[in-house]
Amino acid sequence: MELLAGFKPLDQETVGVDQGCCRILFEDIDSPEDLPPFSRSTMDGYAVRARDTFGCSESEPALLKIAGEIAMGSLGSEVKLAPGHAARIWTGGALPAGADSVVMVEYTHQIDDHTIEVFRPVAPAENVIAQGEDFSRGHKVLARGHELRPQDLGVLAGLGLTRIPVFRRPKVAVISTGDELVPPESRPGPGKIRDINSTTLAALANQAGGIGKPMGIVKDDPGSLQMACEDALEKGADIVLLSGGSSVGCRDYTLRVFESLSGAELLAHGISLRPGKPTILAKRGNTALFGLPGHVASAIVVFCLFVRPLIRLMSGRALTVGMKEIKAVCRQEIPSVSGREDFVRVKVEKKPGPDLPEAVPIWGRSGLLRPLVEADGLLVIPRDSEGLEKGEPARVLLF
Amino acid sequence: MELLAGFKPLDQETVGVDQGCCRILFEDIDSPEDLPPFSRSTMDGYAVRARDTFGCSESEPALLKIAGEIAMGSLGSEVKLAPGHAARIWTGGALPAGADSVVMVEYTHQIDDHTIEVFRPVAPAENVIAQGEDFSRGHKVLARGHELRPQDLGVLAGLGLTRIPVFRRPKVAVISTGDELVPPESRPGPGKIRDINSTTLAALANQAGGIGKPMGIVKDDPGSLQMACEDALEKGADIVLLSGGSSVGCRDYTLRVFESLSGAELLAHGISLRPGKPTILAKRGNTALFGLPGHVASAIVVFCLFVRPLIRLMSGRALTVGMKEIKAVCRQEIPSVSGREDFVRVKVEKKPGPDLPEAVPIWGRSGLLRPLVEADGLLVIPRDSEGLEKGEPARVLLF
Repeated sequence: MELLAGFKPLDQETVGVDQGCCRILFEDIDSPEDLPPFSRSTMDGYAVRARDTFGCSESEPALLKIAGEIAMGSLGSEVKLAPGHAARIWTGGALPAGADSVVMVEYTHQIDDHTIEVFRPVAPAENVIAQGEDFSRGHKVLARGHELRPQDLGVLAGLGLTRIPVFRRPKVAVISTGDELVPPESRPGPGKIRDINSTTLAALANQAGGIGKPMGIVKDDPGSLQMACEDALEKGADIVLLSGGSSVGCRDYTLRVFESLSGAELLAHGISLRPGKPTILAKRGNTALFGLPGHVASAIVVFCLFVRPLIRLMSGRALTVGMKEIKAVCRQEIPSVSGREDFVRVKVEKKPGPDLPEAVPIWGRSGLLRPLVEADGLLVIPRDSEGLEKGEPARVLLF
Repeated sequence: MELLAGFKPLDQETVGVDQGCCRILFEDIDSPEDLPPFSRSTMDGYAVRARDTFGCSESEPALLKIAGEIAMGSLGSEVKLAPGHAARIWTGGALPAGADSVVMVEYTHQIDDHTIEVFRPVAPAENVIAQGEDFSRGHKVLARGHELRPQDLGVLAGLGLTRIPVFRRPKVAVISTGDELVPPESRPGPGKIRDINSTTLAALANQAGGIGKPMGIVKDDPGSLQMACEDALEKGADIVLLSGGSSVGCRDYTLRVFESLSGAELLAHGISLRPGKPTILAKRGNTALFGLPGHVASAIVVFCLFVRPLIRLMSGRALTVGMKEIKAVCRQEIPSVSGREDFVRVKVEKKPGPDLPEAVPIWGRSGLLRPLVEADGLLVIPRDSEGLEKGEPARVLLF
């Protein structure tokens, strides 16, 4: 993840408040006005002067004159409450001038058209939210970097903030290379196979908070790769994923193309990771270019460890893998090699009781897809480990 | 949640594989063909007959004649491998007829244009994925009810399945009532306040996997409520949320409107829940009509406990709250009343070390919005509890 430290969050864009869910605030939001904009009742009852109820009780109710009713959506100050008076009010209604509290209707009894009895005293401010008590003008409502939840959007809407400044989401161009590939909607001819990586990586990019843009299938030669990369950059890609092209030749082409882009800097060429070793990463300004391993299962591991964190960083989130992590015990011994981080596809089986769940490795010939569909996550074997014993606890990153 | 048992999952719709992420499969998917469609190499190297390499070693390499090269995307059967021959092949290349395995290039040495040495024997099928080994025609790939992940979509694309049958997502009509409400983009006049519930509830519905449809603000009278409900039903709503209208009168209107809809059946009128008590739920066919509490904080609790589970059920998911749940200890005593489930807004503060995080209640006058923005989740006080002691562990549902 240190490889990604040089990248920066993207600039801002503005979205409608109804489109803001899960986006990251680009700036602190201060309240442009008082909320509520006037003192409101939180109960159905009567607006009163609290001191007019002091000392009242069931046996000695306070008698108050009915000064009128505050219709919902009307300004309470139209009614001016004189001492000894009460005004009928509803939850959310505007407190009339002169009133400082609300008696719940349950503690009142209407004697006639003009008079009520009050059985319980209220304190000043009781059952009232004062003007600006939620957010006074200039008060910070939400901070830059906050991930917007439905309730946050509601409050922003309540403040009239219907256009929200958020971090732009990175455009993730997905290029599949390989002379054997045809698009998913085609019928593969002899020796051909449908492209799996474009669909998978674009969906992963969307899921991570980016905007996946499949750019189609590119022939496995340096000229075509170069043109495809330049096209993606011209179209404003923030991240370019070049995947497929699993041949040694293609990896060399990818390296050559990345190096030939003006201003590009190679950050990694091979990573001590299994699967995922042949990964290539270059940086050009704030744009990242990845050469991902050819097989989709390996490409997914690299996506989880590098691309998703980068999408998170660029879209204003914390630089983390952003996957749910659990502890599980290995059902069987899993060998590894020290000096290399290993990611093993596992099924996670919950056990009754308080025991940790079991991680069951899904072995399978390299290159098979089925283990990918069957797996719940990736078990992590740390770099300094030579493998895990049966029953040993381990970290599992859940898909 | 038993209240929801009578509702059924919705019918199916078809989406493009690129739109399938997080959707629920409506039917089992069987493989329409073999994947891979031909036997493929998983390595760069030479396709051979395994028996031609048996017994070879560094000191006694096997000598094989080069029969040609399998170009990527060409059919391997164009080359017919005679005994004693080897064909250059790349990862993903189609195995030529006659070959049964691939020797990695690292274990070979090319002597001249026509001959290679092989230093390590391979077993039959080594470094090869046989035709149909991933998915043979008719093999079940994914089961009905499975939530589609990027890797699943990739495999479906690989099988040419670009149109996917999934459960339809419920349309959730959101109606805000209240004579004091104006739309978020308006400047509230005297005694008016902007509608918060529409934005919040529509975003919650989208987040839960539904399609939130704000239907605007409706006046707080029976005729307007009735028209709004009928309009929502005509437009195909699967769930109608009527919120706001916190006055006692409005609750009566809501009840009356729900009861007057032909074929509607009242499932609940008041729920022993705090906040959320005044909730009303009616069922008309497979459509649900909720009268939610007026204050958005209470409406959110009812959404989490009833509406989100129902959206999950209707969209083919399990009938659960669908919120991440953690254990936390109460930082302070929280009183409650036996016979009622209480949901207390809390901040969750992680502690260093293995200790459970702390749940800090955010008290605040009823009706305030700020606690909602500050809270990380809802602490649950069970029905049979009279409150929680300081330091007592409790369940917290995270927003």
